[in-house]
Amino acid sequence: MSYAKLEQRFTQLHHFAHLGAICGWDRATMMPDGGNPARSAALAELSVLMHQRLTGPEMADWFAAAAEESLSASQQISLGEMRRQWQQATVLPEALVQAKSLAGSRCEHAWREQRKQNDWQGFLGNFREVVALSREEAQIRAAATGLRPYDSLLDLYEPGMNSARLDTLFGDLKSWLPNLIQQVTERQQHETLIQPQGPFPTAKQAELGKQVMQLLGFDFNRGRQDVSVHPFCGGVPSDVRITTRYDEADFTQSLMGIIHETGHARYEQGLPLDRLALPVGQARSMGIHESQSLFFEMQMARHPAFMARLSPLVSQTFGAQAALSSDNLARLYTRVEPGFIRVDADEVTYPTHVMLRYEVEQKLIEGALEAKDIPELWNLRMTDYLGLSTLGNDRNGCMQDIHWTDGSFGYFPSYTLGAMYAAQFAAALQRELGDFTTLLGSAEGLAQVFGWLQRHIWHPASSLGTDALVQAATGEALNAVHFRRHLEQRYLG
Amino acid sequence: MSYAKLEQRFTQLHHFAHLGAICGWDRATMMPDGGNPARSAALAELSVLMHQRLTGPEMADWFAAAAEESLSASQQISLGEMRRQWQQATVLPEALVQAKSLAGSRCEHAWREQRKQNDWQGFLGNFREVVALSREEAQIRAAATGLRPYDSLLDLYEPGMNSARLDTLFGDLKSWLPNLIQQVTERQQHETLIQPQGPFPTAKQAELGKQVMQLLGFDFNRGRQDVSVHPFCGGVPSDVRITTRYDEADFTQSLMGIIHETGHARYEQGLPLDRLALPVGQARSMGIHESQSLFFEMQMARHPAFMARLSPLVSQTFGAQAALSSDNLARLYTRVEPGFIRVDADEVTYPTHVMLRYEVEQKLIEGALEAKDIPELWNLRMTDYLGLSTLGNDRNGCMQDIHWTDGSFGYFPSYTLGAMYAAQFAAALQRELGDFTTLLGSAEGLAQVFGWLQRHIWHPASSLGTDALVQAATGEALNAVHFRRHLEQRYLG
Repeated sequence: MSYAKLEQRFTQLHHFAHLGAICGWDRATMMPDGGNPARSAALAELSVLMHQRLTGPEMADWFAAAAEESLSASQQISLGEMRRQWQQATVLPEALVQAKSLAGSRCEHAWREQRKQNDWQGFLGNFREVVALSREEAQIRAAATGLRPYDSLLDLYEPGMNSARLDTLFGDLKSWLPNLIQQVTERQQHETLIQPQGPFPTAKQAELGKQVMQLLGFDFNRGRQDVSVHPFCGGVPSDVRITTRYDEADFTQSLMGIIHETGHARYEQGLPLDRLALPVGQARSMGIHESQSLFFEMQMARHPAFMARLSPLVSQTFGAQAALSSDNLARLYTRVEPGFIRVDADEVTYPTHVMLRYEVEQKLIEGALEAKDIPELWNLRMTDYLGLSTLGNDRNGCMQDIHWTDGSFGYFPSYTLGAMYAAQFAAALQRELGDFTTLLGSAEGLAQVFGWLQRHIWHPASSLGTDALVQAATGEALNAVHFRRHLEQRYLG
Repeated sequence: MSYAKLEQRFTQLHHFAHLGAICGWDRATMMPDGGNPARSAALAELSVLMHQRLTGPEMADWFAAAAEESLSASQQISLGEMRRQWQQATVLPEALVQAKSLAGSRCEHAWREQRKQNDWQGFLGNFREVVALSREEAQIRAAATGLRPYDSLLDLYEPGMNSARLDTLFGDLKSWLPNLIQQVTERQQHETLIQPQGPFPTAKQAELGKQVMQLLGFDFNRGRQDVSVHPFCGGVPSDVRITTRYDEADFTQSLMGIIHETGHARYEQGLPLDRLALPVGQARSMGIHESQSLFFEMQMARHPAFMARLSPLVSQTFGAQAALSSDNLARLYTRVEPGFIRVDADEVTYPTHVMLRYEVEQKLIEGALEAKDIPELWNLRMTDYLGLSTLGNDRNGCMQDIHWTDGSFGYFPSYTLGAMYAAQFAAALQRELGDFTTLLGSAEGLAQVFGWLQRHIWHPASSLGTDALVQAATGEALNAVHFRRHLEQRYLG
């Protein structure tokens, strides 16, 4: 039976991906520098192998034959998800994949120095090639899927999303967010913030991080937490590896980073054990993944009721000081400040960074904007949204992110989709189970929250399409209403 | 060109082995328990893949064609080493490989409990099957190689060695070792030993271990040291991972364990970088590998001149006490005590454990002994060699080791071959460079020692056969003379 052969092949790919995930984690956390050339070669060999196994000529035959086989409803869905992965991998000619990989590596590598030097012209030299190849990729994917070119890239990260819907969602945001930012920053001008006084020893921060992970239900029998330069959630669902970095002068960022990664981790740990090897049992999309980290970080952890639980743990760890009171921590963790850098942004200004990138990359891919004109548009929008000029400051403008350097166009919207999903999930959950103010105050309440996420998000995994998942969990399609209400309540309420 | 295709295939296998080595290390050092089922499945998938790639039908064609190609002398040697690995992998029928793997897993798994229970009869139930399948394997390998059955297994671990030569080497040992043990133990009866008083905090032991690794030239840019239940040297040559376990009541075993593994590690780190991917650039044999760990542990580290360097480091780490004087440390580290357990044995009694196992496994494989009769022979030899009866104490007798449980017959001789190689290398090195008493006392002297090993053992890797390597390094074939002289000088001198 061809369907069985496909399941077998995807299970094999899942095992290979396991080896790659662990060796990738090791590279970021454990490997000494000298190990890198051999590790890169080994991981590249694995990529080639996996690509071959995913795109081998037998696959087309199996998919064709499986389509004629008598399958259960859940097998039909599983087949669809396998086909999705297969089509995405097979549609591009090998030569384009290689050219894009080379151009992306070159551009990314040079960018690391060019960004420091604020060297936009130098960057542009490599970047034009990346854009040209990404446009070619988008054309080919569009022809195969019937989607618009940019949408065919977006679909790699967020299946079912498209720019028409994004224009509506982001159009909604744009209509009220700049004004909200203005109101919040004015209001916060008069707040008194007390900065915690360090040092905060790494060992104690690590211990606190583990306590909070435990509180948030991270399963240490199926995962660990370590240190890396860039925090991430990696490993495999049966052994999730999250990382952080510590700053002894400031514990707040690392602690919130751990909570964010714990959200990603619980999604992975909550995926259905019996279907992990197949696409249908894996995470639904980048936006849904981000919704889980933001649910933990933004909806739960920055809520006053959670701050009231966090404050005593922090004080026990570092010794009491006024700055560690529940109220002051809450103020620190909800401070809104327009800034140049996306990754440092608060939850209120963050979407402006994403909307700006979406507009740029959408136009870039569809030919309405040329690479050389990015700084001008960037400056325009940063001035519109946040009142900040990036003229002559490309280092902190359009050169700040790694995403475009290797041609990962279509990824950025996931961040703000995640924030909107998270707010919509939180609203639905509270309608059903009661307010966070009560839920977050007790172990039973937290268990109810996790149970809801488990039932509606983690366990369904990819057995539902993104829209169907959101509809089933919240009773409505994705919209910006709940995100707006969340921000207004937290920041103006 | 078929030779080039073979190089390409073995390079690919080397990359896959890299992934397996790192994921295997991770399993022993980092992985939480819950990660094991998925890890095992992923590593099993990798084994299947590697076996397929090593034994695919194209390989026979390539080897046949390469034999007709015009190759350089070094390519000829490389081809020979590739063929050796390939033949060893292809000669057994799949069904036998699977049956042995299953029987071995079953026997090993049950043994963990049966050993604790001293349940020889229970063990025998599974073990008979392992023996029968290993005999079958030996017959098939013997038919393919023209070697005697047992020798065809020995050849997997120590190419070029055979039981005729082992009988001579071990016959030599047997003629003087029991008497030497007697003399040493009588002489040591009157020594005063001072036991170091703990506790010795793990963090401090770890720091001391790193200092000593640095002293011994371990390259931390291409390796690391961590903790595992069973110490080992793993990873890959460009990133060698050694492990230890700590006992806060006694630092001596862990410290010497680290030195032992550092010997293994320097061999791996010293292999020729430009040939690492091919069999010809990999470690020569298990005996030669063990010779490097024993060179570090027995020849260098337990030498009085090294003890004089170690003692101040130990005192600085833990605070001064009489037990940590150079002389007392040397006495602790050269204490000879006949005992039941091989892995706890000192360097003088150790070979008796190995000779006994060699005699048993050689007879067992060639049908001169049945599994049920092992305890009787074991007791006889333990009484002969060490004056210890194991009657009714199989737990500390023939059931103590893991090696036979999965049918790894032919491995045990490597340990004592390693000890003899190490003594012979140390003698040749000192003839050339001067005495250890001087060499081990300075950084330049140590650098000379490492330079000698690098030139004669590490860098040649498998470009010479085992015998040729030993002959080139020492000017003579392997013999027991230097090992005897080493023991007599250290323990009776």
